[in-house]
Amino acid sequence: MSEVATTLEGWYSLHDFRSINWSAWKSADDEDRAMALDELQAFVQEWTTVESTNKGSSTAYSIVGQKADFMFMHLRETLEDLNAVETAFNKTIFAQYTTKAYSYVSIVELSNYMSSANGGDPMDNPEIVARLKPILPKNRYICFYPMNKKRELADNWYMLSMDERRALMRTHSLIGRSYAGKVKQIITGSVGLDDWEWGVTLFSEDALQFKKLVYEMRFDEVSARYGEFGTFYVGSLLSEQSFEDMLKL
Amino acid sequence: MSEVATTLEGWYSLHDFRSINWSAWKSADDEDRAMALDELQAFVQEWTTVESTNKGSSTAYSIVGQKADFMFMHLRETLEDLNAVETAFNKTIFAQYTTKAYSYVSIVELSNYMSSANGGDPMDNPEIVARLKPILPKNRYICFYPMNKKRELADNWYMLSMDERRALMRTHSLIGRSYAGKVKQIITGSVGLDDWEWGVTLFSEDALQFKKLVYEMRFDEVSARYGEFGTFYVGSLLSEQSFEDMLKL
Amino acid sequence: MSEVATTLEGWYSLHDFRSINWSAWKSADDEDRAMALDELQAFVQEWTTVESTNKGSSTAYSIVGQKADFMFMHLRETLEDLNAVETAFNKTIFAQYTTKAYSYVSIVELSNYMSSANGGDPMDNPEIVARLKPILPKNRYICFYPMNKKRELADNWYMLSMDERRALMRTHSLIGRSYAGKVKQIITGSVGLDDWEWGVTLFSEDALQFKKLVYEMRFDEVSARYGEFGTFYVGSLLSEQSFEDMLKL
Amino acid sequence: MSEVATTLEGWYSLHDFRSINWSAWKSADDEDRAMALDELQAFVQEWTTVESTNKGSSTAYSIVGQKADFMFMHLRETLEDLNAVETAFNKTIFAQYTTKAYSYVSIVELSNYMSSANGGDPMDNPEIVARLKPILPKNRYICFYPMNKKRELADNWYMLSMDERRALMRTHSLIGRSYAGKVKQIITGSVGLDDWEWGVTLFSEDALQFKKLVYEMRFDEVSARYGEFGTFYVGSLLSEQSFEDMLKL
Amino acid sequence: MSEVATTLEGWYSLHDFRSINWSAWKSADDEDRAMALDELQAFVQEWTTVESTNKGSSTAYSIVGQKADFMFMHLRETLEDLNAVETAFNKTIFAQYTTKAYSYVSIVELSNYMSSANGGDPMDNPEIVARLKPILPKNRYICFYPMNKKRELADNWYMLSMDERRALMRTHSLIGRSYAGKVKQIITGSVGLDDWEWGVTLFSEDALQFKKLVYEMRFDEVSARYGEFGTFYVGSLLSEQSFEDMLKL
Repeated sequence: MSEVATTLEGWYSLHDFRSINWSAWKSADDEDRAMALDELQAFVQEWTTVESTNKGSSTAYSIVGQKADFMFMHLRETLEDLNAVETAFNKTIFAQYTTKAYSYVSIVELSNYMSSANGGDPMDNPEIVARLKPILPKNRYICFYPMNKKRELADNWYMLSMDERRALMRTHSLIGRSYAGKVKQIITGSVGLDDWEWGVTLFSEDALQFKKLVYEMRFDEVSARYGEFGTFYVGSLLSEQSFEDMLKL
Repeated sequence: MSEVATTLEGWYSLHDFRSINWSAWKSADDEDRAMALDELQAFVQEWTTVESTNKGSSTAYSIVGQKADFMFMHLRETLEDLNAVETAFNKTIFAQYTTKAYSYVSIVELSNYMSSANGGDPMDNPEIVARLKPILPKNRYICFYPMNKKRELADNWYMLSMDERRALMRTHSLIGRSYAGKVKQIITGSVGLDDWEWGVTLFSEDALQFKKLVYEMRFDEVSARYGEFGTFYVGSLLSEQSFEDMLKL
Repeated sequence: MSEVATTLEGWYSLHDFRSINWSAWKSADDEDRAMALDELQAFVQEWTTVESTNKGSSTAYSIVGQKADFMFMHLRETLEDLNAVETAFNKTIFAQYTTKAYSYVSIVELSNYMSSANGGDPMDNPEIVARLKPILPKNRYICFYPMNKKRELADNWYMLSMDERRALMRTHSLIGRSYAGKVKQIITGSVGLDDWEWGVTLFSEDALQFKKLVYEMRFDEVSARYGEFGTFYVGSLLSEQSFEDMLKL
Repeated sequence: MSEVATTLEGWYSLHDFRSINWSAWKSADDEDRAMALDELQAFVQEWTTVESTNKGSSTAYSIVGQKADFMFMHLRETLEDLNAVETAFNKTIFAQYTTKAYSYVSIVELSNYMSSANGGDPMDNPEIVARLKPILPKNRYICFYPMNKKRELADNWYMLSMDERRALMRTHSLIGRSYAGKVKQIITGSVGLDDWEWGVTLFSEDALQFKKLVYEMRFDEVSARYGEFGTFYVGSLLSEQSFEDMLKL
Repeated sequence: MSEVATTLEGWYSLHDFRSINWSAWKSADDEDRAMALDELQAFVQEWTTVESTNKGSSTAYSIVGQKADFMFMHLRETLEDLNAVETAFNKTIFAQYTTKAYSYVSIVELSNYMSSANGGDPMDNPEIVARLKPILPKNRYICFYPMNKKRELADNWYMLSMDERRALMRTHSLIGRSYAGKVKQIITGSVGLDDWEWGVTLFSEDALQFKKLVYEMRFDEVSARYGEFGTFYVGSLLSEQSFEDMLKL
């Protein structure tokens, strides 16, 4: 058996993609829509409390194209907390005007391939804790996709030695670093939690940087030989105002 | 033909995943909801009788994310018994507020790769019987996924010799054992019964252990070269109280 | 081109899997349900006539899990006859309370790999005719799955010589024979008729034998290297009484 | 780059598979059903005019199993003509009682692998024109499936030389010819038009010949190594009378 | 890591495929249909303003077959602009009579494999700008499909050297050029934006040229060994008049 890369985990994560049932929304009467919007506003404002008490973080983005109309990303301390926020939304009036599009369950993860292990409990390191329990950035654009490392005959990531994987990951992470200041990324691990092994969530002020970054990485052996990618979602930040604008008829 | 590993089988198993039609549930009147909840409570309480008469075991967990809202896991003596409990639920009022999400049919299985065969009928061994006809644990978290052993060109589990498979399984099971006390697992076989070859159901007080266990195993050759995995479901225990809370509006 | 194994064909076959719309069934009034059941009873009783005049055979089984609630298996002389029985069911009242789940079109087939060709028209052999135009058994359990022979690079069944295929099939059929008295099987060919190359329908008094048989075969090279399997359905016999019980509210 | 086989193209083709919403059809009142049938009859009778003016050809077949209840096959001079006949059907009353099941867009094609090129414009050859712009046969049975030539590592049709492909196609077409008088086939090309590279439509008085032909071809290297097959549909001719019978309650 | 081909990007692109709910459209009353058509007309006419102010370009085509009834293609400066036009359509009355069929998010792209880099900012070159921010052609026919470059064992585009890729692309583009005057193509990149790596949109006065072009390319090594193709959509231009005709009952 290959040596296993150790990982550090932080908050559990739920990406919750939804589509709007525009026909139902349009045929609702004004009062119902107003109540739905009020309740939605309250649901979103609750996130401020969650963040201020350091119990998690949430954000909302619109999604371009038919895959979904918007998504929530929730970080919380436990699976029950995620379930609670999901169920709370399901009970809102507004949720009755939406349909499920996709969801992803994972947990914020730092892998140790690159770590300069200097002893001590990493959870005592505030920088590491901040990365494991992050306040979600409010950048203009988001990009989400799940991914696997391939296990296909000669291209089997999990049959490589730790040294081979470490060397490959080093190059790979250099590409990521070259986008520092342009793209923030949150890696969430989902082995044993959802259908892919990782979720990648990227934030940027310039959506083109998502394309540049992912394309450049595709020529790197880690992606080229070993990367398997799921569905890509891109969209733009929903402030309270732009969320309301999106729903105004 | 490779020598076939013999197996022992116990209770038949049905994993029954359901989503809640929240719109319908919200628009039902209070009386209907109350009746539905009463009937659901009776349906769940019946399980106590089943367990106390050693005719099977059942449990309920909520599921995080959009794949399902909750799941039942039923162990029973025959396929007809499973069919009966499934149909009984379908006839409840509450079931009319749910939609089918996924199900899995299998049978509790012990493989003999590791057995220290010491003669005698294994069904006379109470420890083995207890593993084949288990009372389902009431741990805080559950994880379920179906899996196959690969048959892909050079990576073909079923073309390996018995000795090769036994050696590989030995290492594999050591990982499992290292999680003793942290994760309980029930393996159910489904060759000839459902679309994958096995179902894996894990129980733990700490959901993170699911990720740790499955991730560590992925570097083991049995999973790395030969494992194919289906959809992963995770969730938390539904007591009578928390089930009611989930449904309260 | 490899030599082609000749085959004998008998009755056309339709496996017709259906789910019950329990919400609609529950909300129907008693009279409608009674009429639906009467008509369903008549539909099923007609099969006696078909069998007694040797024009075909039909049976009904419940299905465990969410894939379907029940299935009909029809054998008839022509595709039009299959279409007629399918359309007749679609026009019943009861069918309006069901939804389509899956279907499979094929034709009862005997392959000649094992035949002791002794001249003469095989259709003059009553034993062969009985296997090609069988009255469906009334065993307690059924198992159905479609399958292909693989055509993947080095594992290509159709590029093997006739001698290689004959040798492999000989071993394979020995496993089947070792289950004589425990499992009856009807092989139906579907090349050119449906999406897989064969349908396998197994009947037994003990559902565990399906698992034992299919698992044992999986280690045989014919399945291990060359078998591709579709969805598995298992269930138990629906007598007139148990069909009614299933539908009673 | 391999030399490209030239092709000749004739009429555009649309296979349009539909399912009947039997619940809606049954709950319609007699007058609505009568109007729907009159309009359907008119829609079908229009095809006589199209054929008599040599502007195309159309036919209708019932389909066995749940994939669809019936299909139309339309040949027309342009994509707009296909679109027009499709939209015309969508606007009929009867279409409101149907749901979409599958469709395929292609163009009648003759490949030149076998051609005895003897100079001159092939469109001056009435025999070739008749094959490119055929009146659809009225045989009792139809079989349709789409297919690709594989491009998988060592089994890559498009990396073979023209000579290799020509030699392989020669053997392949000999099988087809051995079914002359038993099976008529119309090959339609769909590269750049739909999701597979070709559609194969077979007509016969004996549905068993579809199985015999496709099975025999599967042992031929062109299919064995290079063939990828989509969904198979089989059914029987719908005359005006049998179409009406199918819909009679 | 292989050298990465640099790319130039222009307008963001949304392909928005829709099906018409003919039952709902037919059962709407005349007034509602008239209002829906007026609003649709206004929605389409707005595109003239967008094009005249060089803020983007939009077009509409009908689609043949059941995959969709029509599609919009929108080019805009930002993801928010695409989202806005998509949401604006979703809020129209007409949209309530349609269902989502497919969508694709990408960005107009020029790759540099062929570029004769002669220094200077390419965005100063009006010819390049015109290709990156094009007014969509009004040709009679459209063809759209998404595609990937394969990463499968020995056939891995992203593991080739820049020189190998450049040589392969040169031959490939020669085929494209040989269709100059017959087929216009717009390549949009979607790595990091949608599920495939590129979208290809072809325009022509003759739909047969789509088949000829894509078929010829399939024998070229770039496609033969490295091309993976998604769903193909073909259709014909919807002028204001023909759009209205399509919807007239």
